Amino acid sequence: MYSKRQIIIQDMIKGFHVDALFITNFYNILYFTGFRTLVPHEREAFLLVTKKNAYIFSDGRYERHTPSPSQEGNFKLLTPEKGLMKHLQEIIAEEKIVKMGFEREDLKWSEYNTFQKSLGVELIPQDRVGVKIRAVKDAQEIAKIKKACEVGDECLRDISKTLREGSSEKEVAWNIEKWIRDKGYEIAFDPIVAVDANSAVPHYDTKNGNSHVKSNSIILIDMGVRYDGYNSDITRMFFMGKQPDEVIGAYETLLSAQTKTIRYLSKDHKLADVDKYCRQLITDNRLPTYPHSTGHGVGLEVHENPKVSGTSEETFQSGNIITIEPGIYLPGKWGMRIEDTVAITSNKQVKVLTAYPKLLQVL
Amino acid sequence: MYSKRQIIIQDMIKGFHVDALFITNFYNILYFTGFRTLVPHEREAFLLVTKKNAYIFSDGRYERHTPSPSQEGNFKLLTPEKGLMKHLQEIIAEEKIVKMGFEREDLKWSEYNTFQKSLGVELIPQDRVGVKIRAVKDAQEIAKIKKACEVGDECLRDISKTLREGSSEKEVAWNIEKWIRDKGYEIAFDPIVAVDANSAVPHYDTKNGNSHVKSNSIILIDMGVRYDGYNSDITRMFFMGKQPDEVIGAYETLLSAQTKTIRYLSKDHKLADVDKYCRQLITDNRLPTYPHSTGHGVGLEVHENPKVSGTSEETFQSGNIITIEPGIYLPGKWGMRIEDTVAITSNKQVKVLTAYPKLLQVL
Repeated sequence: MYSKRQIIIQDMIKGFHVDALFITNFYNILYFTGFRTLVPHEREAFLLVTKKNAYIFSDGRYERHTPSPSQEGNFKLLTPEKGLMKHLQEIIAEEKIVKMGFEREDLKWSEYNTFQKSLGVELIPQDRVGVKIRAVKDAQEIAKIKKACEVGDECLRDISKTLREGSSEKEVAWNIEKWIRDKGYEIAFDPIVAVDANSAVPHYDTKNGNSHVKSNSIILIDMGVRYDGYNSDITRMFFMGKQPDEVIGAYETLLSAQTKTIRYLSKDHKLADVDKYCRQLITDNRLPTYPHSTGHGVGLEVHENPKVSGTSEETFQSGNIITIEPGIYLPGKWGMRIEDTVAITSNKQVKVLTAYPKLLQVL
Repeated sequence: MYSKRQIIIQDMIKGFHVDALFITNFYNILYFTGFRTLVPHEREAFLLVTKKNAYIFSDGRYERHTPSPSQEGNFKLLTPEKGLMKHLQEIIAEEKIVKMGFEREDLKWSEYNTFQKSLGVELIPQDRVGVKIRAVKDAQEIAKIKKACEVGDECLRDISKTLREGSSEKEVAWNIEKWIRDKGYEIAFDPIVAVDANSAVPHYDTKNGNSHVKSNSIILIDMGVRYDGYNSDITRMFFMGKQPDEVIGAYETLLSAQTKTIRYLSKDHKLADVDKYCRQLITDNRLPTYPHSTGHGVGLEVHENPKVSGTSEETFQSGNIITIEPGIYLPGKWGMRIEDTVAITSNKQVKVLTAYPKLLQVL
């Protein structure tokens, strides 16, 4: 358990009026304790924080992981003979726990059901535990994301020089990944490389795609780097040869909307307003709005809070790191998106962390 | 929706005595419909199967995915104005749905809660939907896993030639991944390469490790290939130079236990018995038992049903594909594991799909 974050979570417990908080979300466990199992979507570890203690539960495969020295002694080994329920029953009795909070968006129905039958405590659903606190990054976290953004910029610089007629989407995506990993970093997500009509599919599945760059192609590259657990996210467009006026005009509109929206962040802190502002700049030019939000938080997860969307009820806070990524999509023809990772620093100042050029580039 | 599998799911609905079944599990949606969103652990799509119809719900990013032609017309677009609840309410009214099944191990507490408040149907938890049916593979699925195993064998043959003093674990793991992906396949999971004392950690985290091969090292490699969505899983040991008798003796015990257990599969079909049988062969030789199950099902997921463990209450069925992977671990010293992917074919015949040699190899 990170000592600073242990204080945060103990404060949460007080605020929730519970005696303990049970954490199942992989990224929350990582955030609070540094403990990391191999597969995020498999339930390989659990965290229980009480008023005095913190316990990590995992099986023998992870017994010799050492998350942090202060964690030692609170590792509870799950075995076929002594599973999670037995451990929890013991701790509940020892520490006289009556009310136990849980993550309402993460606990499965079956887990809740088993707890209800076996634990004899009052289970109190908690809304978006970790989500709010993780949305506000500290200086160390911002530095890691900044570094991830810089590596991404450098990668795009090198990869852009390799784009040529005949390159397949898959090959470019794989070259991006190799570039990042050969240098000892990780990818934040499978890079999206979408050529021509495929660029109109906002979440194009490059791994299952089959297109090649042509002499007059439009190429969308959406990629990110993970550095020490923290992610970056950037999208850039590349144009092979001269493009029709329609494409150039749309790109200019998009670029202007994206940069204006980034500037707008320091003026209006309501996320829903930012989303509306950005869309308006595009639809005012008689171009279609985009079927996704204007942006999202970035951190231990590529998509985290806050969400820059029309349904968001939040305002920005200093320490937020978000993307601004409007797009223009003409299904069957072409699509484009420009995305930067942006930090809201102290006093709600805005700092763009991704620096790869955005001016229309013809290769 | 795959027509054959639509019949299976309609039969399930009858068996569950419900009017509809709501599916959230990424791999179940993929299995039944072929529809695949980009990030397995983010909720990007949902499936509702009624007595007559099947509906996929996803947002605008996936509107132009085409899972299979027969799916067309049943794609329901999720927008900020018309979200999942509104779509479900409409279908529930139209098709007069009273009882709706859901996956008890997959639905989140918050999702269940929203359904209860908004849908006005009786929600019926269903146990391990898809898990049982997916555990029995058809001929096409077996062929895909067999192919994935063959690619894995070939990869190990090439990689084994590159192992030498000074190689880092990370570098070997990355070479395995590059080998697989350069040939156009995917990795089933991040390869585990664990040297010497690290090999005693059953789920060693190679990406965060830092060891190198020495002149007398023990090297554990646990890797798998994904071919057309289906996975393989294999673990082999490599020995640099002559090993102490203790190590050789343990390896011989392990190899004998692993191969005997594979033969035993055709004699006893209770999974718990197989687990017990394998452990006994190791502990009879005064070596420690292993802190994980003897094996697991392999398919669209690397870890799926059935589980070959002491707590399992199931028996094998023809069409199961499982791993047999006992290990011997001496924490702080060394560890070893031998793992094959094995198919239980018609009439419960046993066929080993991974063919890379298991005899003690000194490099």
